[in-house]
Amino acid sequence: MQARELWFTENYTDGARFSIRIDAQVYSHKSRFQQIDIFDTPEFGRVLVLDGCIMLTEKDEFIYHEMIVHPAMAVRPDIKRVLVIGGGDGGCVRELLQYESIESVDLCEIDREVIETCRRFLPQTAGRMDDIRVELHIADGLKFVRRQKNAYDLIIVDSTDPFGPGEGLFTREFYGNCYSALTENGILINQHESPYYRGDALAMQRAHRQLSAVFPMASVYQVHIPTYPSGHWLFGFAAKNAECNPCEFDEEQWNALGISTRYYNTKLHKGSFALPNYVKDLLSGKE
Amino acid sequence: MQARELWFTENYTDGARFSIRIDAQVYSHKSRFQQIDIFDTPEFGRVLVLDGCIMLTEKDEFIYHEMIVHPAMAVRPDIKRVLVIGGGDGGCVRELLQYESIESVDLCEIDREVIETCRRFLPQTAGRMDDIRVELHIADGLKFVRRQKNAYDLIIVDSTDPFGPGEGLFTREFYGNCYSALTENGILINQHESPYYRGDALAMQRAHRQLSAVFPMASVYQVHIPTYPSGHWLFGFAAKNAECNPCEFDEEQWNALGISTRYYNTKLHKGSFALPNYVKDLLSGKE
Repeated sequence: MQARELWFTENYTDGARFSIRIDAQVYSHKSRFQQIDIFDTPEFGRVLVLDGCIMLTEKDEFIYHEMIVHPAMAVRPDIKRVLVIGGGDGGCVRELLQYESIESVDLCEIDREVIETCRRFLPQTAGRMDDIRVELHIADGLKFVRRQKNAYDLIIVDSTDPFGPGEGLFTREFYGNCYSALTENGILINQHESPYYRGDALAMQRAHRQLSAVFPMASVYQVHIPTYPSGHWLFGFAAKNAECNPCEFDEEQWNALGISTRYYNTKLHKGSFALPNYVKDLLSGKE
Repeated sequence: MQARELWFTENYTDGARFSIRIDAQVYSHKSRFQQIDIFDTPEFGRVLVLDGCIMLTEKDEFIYHEMIVHPAMAVRPDIKRVLVIGGGDGGCVRELLQYESIESVDLCEIDREVIETCRRFLPQTAGRMDDIRVELHIADGLKFVRRQKNAYDLIIVDSTDPFGPGEGLFTREFYGNCYSALTENGILINQHESPYYRGDALAMQRAHRQLSAVFPMASVYQVHIPTYPSGHWLFGFAAKNAECNPCEFDEEQWNALGISTRYYNTKLHKGSFALPNYVKDLLSGKE
């Protein structure tokens, strides 16, 4: 008897693809905005796929979610009001709620079905979304942020790629509205694509150009995320205060908080802002 | 007419695999030691595969070769005599020869056919192996290093994985012989596997345990190598001098050398030694 093999494949480019073995397709549904799939896999545990792209796996989602939250919180421990745009899987919210100092988290997700699917199938990430400090807004982030002024100390853009529902979240207009929605020393963090494959690198360059046009300080840091294309992923760190230095902060103060992390630490935080030459060249438009 | 598709697949584990589209199989031969394949690919240029594992691609070999050479050279600019074990593709030699201060490079490769194949098909990496400062030794690195005493300022173990011909290069006996082959303040750099997939992580833990048993200072640094399993790769940095700190060196002195790099820079060098918590736990045996 031959064993049955079931594989999911993500095409990184026309010439490179990554495949993971599937035990079972747990859920599959086309929402108003995108195709949502949940798989159980032997290597990565449960996996969320949106429009054919791996969004998170139980094995390594901690890397993405820790690294999109903790650097900003270490630099600005006085952050109280946070807006997460996208992030319907709840992983970002889970990490934010580790900070007792945070008073409110608004989560603005365009696709109600992502939230419901993650609540049902991914309690590891989605389990904290009903916390009293969290308010859910099922809305287009682009429109939602336009109505906010001086309202948030931190905005986290936890979006999909700049194709489909995430597209508007990579535009100058959107970043400009985020700027206005932030308080005086506000910070914006965004998932910033990858420098490696051509299409991702172009999206990365565009995001950095638009962010830099709006914020007086726009920097980039890097993370190892093995289940994203190339495993070399970037986040953007932009601040309204031109003097803000994302590598200057009180390490002891953050360590004293006793926040539990498996990837993030304050030394790695500082190291992650040191980028390879070819990435710096891409960001500065030299390559 | 349907287009012909040809793909090469590397199995990272039983449940994860990476595939690259092939334009042509340029060369394929089973040497005494391993299966050698050269492919031309649209995404990665020419690719060298040994025993089914991607060793290097023209697109990103600069990352591996810069990062296995320059950190040691920045910390110890007085290095004059170097031994490379493995490294038959010549990429390591190419980077070393950028330093005028280096007097000799011994390259000890077990498989003559790797050198010949790379000379023929991969001049980008293999083009400097006939330099007057380079001496080739077609020999088992394990036996070669046993005969050397106090002979090298730097040993670079540019090996395959610890299965097949590379196996002996991950043992305590081998590291002990390297220790004796090094001069007083000598440094050993080795490719140190990856923390992500279980098999690679076990090899990484074993390598670190053995290195730490022999060298008074054994540290690890990380690199983004998209065409290696998980893209999260490590190198070991071990020193005979317990006081050696791989993050303390004169950045200006290295920058003044005018060495050309596309990945390495001195800030990234320092950042690459800051490891994620889960990797530190694996290395210390906590996980």
